[in-house]
Amino acid sequence: MTDTAPRPTLEAVAARAGVSRATASRVVNGGDGVREPLVERVRRAVDELGYVPNQAARSLVTRRHDAVAVVIAEPETRVFADPFFALQLRGISKELTAHDNQLVLLLTEGRDDHARVGRYLAGGHVDGALVFSLHLDDPLPGLIRRAGVPTVFGGRPDWSDGEDGDRDPAARDTDAADRGEGAGGGGGVMYVDSDNRDGARTAVRHLVGLGRTRVAHITGPLDQTSAADRLDGFRDVRVDADPRLVEESDFTPAGGERAMRELLDRRPDLNAVFAANDLSAAGALRVLRERGLRVPQDVAVIGFDDMLPVADQTDPPLTTVRQDIEEMGRLMARLLLSRLDHRATPAHGADTGTPAGVILPTTLIRRASA
Amino acid sequence: MTDTAPRPTLEAVAARAGVSRATASRVVNGGDGVREPLVERVRRAVDELGYVPNQAARSLVTRRHDAVAVVIAEPETRVFADPFFALQLRGISKELTAHDNQLVLLLTEGRDDHARVGRYLAGGHVDGALVFSLHLDDPLPGLIRRAGVPTVFGGRPDWSDGEDGDRDPAARDTDAADRGEGAGGGGGVMYVDSDNRDGARTAVRHLVGLGRTRVAHITGPLDQTSAADRLDGFRDVRVDADPRLVEESDFTPAGGERAMRELLDRRPDLNAVFAANDLSAAGALRVLRERGLRVPQDVAVIGFDDMLPVADQTDPPLTTVRQDIEEMGRLMARLLLSRLDHRATPAHGADTGTPAGVILPTTLIRRASA
Repeated sequence: MTDTAPRPTLEAVAARAGVSRATASRVVNGGDGVREPLVERVRRAVDELGYVPNQAARSLVTRRHDAVAVVIAEPETRVFADPFFALQLRGISKELTAHDNQLVLLLTEGRDDHARVGRYLAGGHVDGALVFSLHLDDPLPGLIRRAGVPTVFGGRPDWSDGEDGDRDPAARDTDAADRGEGAGGGGGVMYVDSDNRDGARTAVRHLVGLGRTRVAHITGPLDQTSAADRLDGFRDVRVDADPRLVEESDFTPAGGERAMRELLDRRPDLNAVFAANDLSAAGALRVLRERGLRVPQDVAVIGFDDMLPVADQTDPPLTTVRQDIEEMGRLMARLLLSRLDHRATPAHGADTGTPAGVILPTTLIRRASA
Repeated sequence: MTDTAPRPTLEAVAARAGVSRATASRVVNGGDGVREPLVERVRRAVDELGYVPNQAARSLVTRRHDAVAVVIAEPETRVFADPFFALQLRGISKELTAHDNQLVLLLTEGRDDHARVGRYLAGGHVDGALVFSLHLDDPLPGLIRRAGVPTVFGGRPDWSDGEDGDRDPAARDTDAADRGEGAGGGGGVMYVDSDNRDGARTAVRHLVGLGRTRVAHITGPLDQTSAADRLDGFRDVRVDADPRLVEESDFTPAGGERAMRELLDRRPDLNAVFAANDLSAAGALRVLRERGLRVPQDVAVIGFDDMLPVADQTDPPLTTVRQDIEEMGRLMARLLLSRLDHRATPAHGADTGTPAGVILPTTLIRRASA
């Protein structure tokens, strides 16, 4: 859509959605009192036609609640057990509070609840959403797209998100830009991430520089881009490409313990471990001690995050790749707020749909374990 | 208001609030698009007149969002640092999810943000609210009352809450029932609490039964009823009434350390400590060890909560008073949901305003520290 093209009307949206003009209007003005399937059809028609409401209607649409939703795609038990989320929320909370916006944290028991989160987002209760810890095939990005709320993601989203249940899986990556456009609520997809691949390379280079050639990797959940990117970085640098030196895990201390046992059973000669986060590195350290292996003399260990007070409290203290988690949260909130301000000014067309990622650098922090 | 009294009209509400009928109607129907001060005036008039909207309007008022706000009157840093809140949220989350209601956690940086929380609650985004960790003089109960959302409190609220800034402080406790009525959003005040006073008595009786007569008490923040009630229970039983045996603290491990040092400096002959929660007991244990005092031989220590994995991980493991924190959260959610169901049925008058507390019993858990 350009400035000169005729602007699609509300009637066109209604016709395309197969609903009355009144229903289309109610959805455009917030969606209250309209059944969910109809809301979705109207929002989809709005997306597809690039409909921009007139000034009066738009002032309703852009009416601010001064509230931002935060959605963490993990069960609430994990949200409270992993300090990563607390740190990211701290950054988000500081930034939103500084702009007198209410932080609305939507907790769930699991993925089955994500449809309800989507309904809440679509219900006109928040101005935008910050979403993190997405997993592959999570329905959230699709739900968020249909909810039509501006969104900033924490971590690079993977657009093979299964948003359209009836879509041919083989076609998934062919129209990523198109889908990406929608997922941001009419603008381009925005996300904040650390340079996970480069951070992993730095870690493994450090281990190789210490003369360790049999480097094992305890991954995170590989349905998350952060874990997949760190695995890629590991593969970029490692010397011994034996697949038995890689064990998938889940970013938890217990998962790190399990993975370390597996790796030692398969390759008792390994002399270094790169764990995809500090919590799993802490679990690995416990298993190494239990097996009578000295760190770093027998096995050098390196983590990822520089999560305090974890990384400095392990025995020995953990060498790790630092990412500024609180700053990531702050930046996500800042980007969303600036996008919301931007949206309130007259807009003559949709954004380009080019995903815009802000990638933060990582730093190696040397302690005693490697 | 009784069944036979003439029902106040919307016009009467508008007149009392000094607004147009249209504005009063908009507020009654959700409050969207009306400036905050006017919303508050109308809601107050609704409260004062006991206005019940007609069937059609009420169906709008009682339109469910299937969302419940949780407000913890602490900065987000404490919410994530104290496992008490995670446990209570776990109970709430399970219960809300079982009824397909969205848990909407409203986080703040501090008390300055509570007005914003009140605005969000008044904005028609949730069906009700669960509120805990109230402190004396917190403006939240007053804000919640004006927001007009049904509420269940975690912990007995103290109605000297400063909700009316212009109210004579001396008159604060004379109309508690009246204010209580409002704070629940038109019904009686409901809260869930543990029997804090009885639990404290049990703890101190146990210490006295061990022959300890010089029992010190590390309190929680005394602007919270849970801490004040535990202090009362301590005073009910203790043998040595020396005020130097009581030190106010803040429910944190660091606060427990500070308080323990103070107490030992003032009364080096103390031979038992009752800490108002397990986290502060853990801090006290560290200081006792640092001073070379043996637990329980020299000083017996008892906590409150039975917070796992804290109470079973201290050295020595902590004897404590157990309260079922997760069950408290579950019960709060259950009470609120049943109240919301009740509200949707025809009602002919306001509730009685009698505060309704569900008080859960506590249990002494004996481990090694006392």
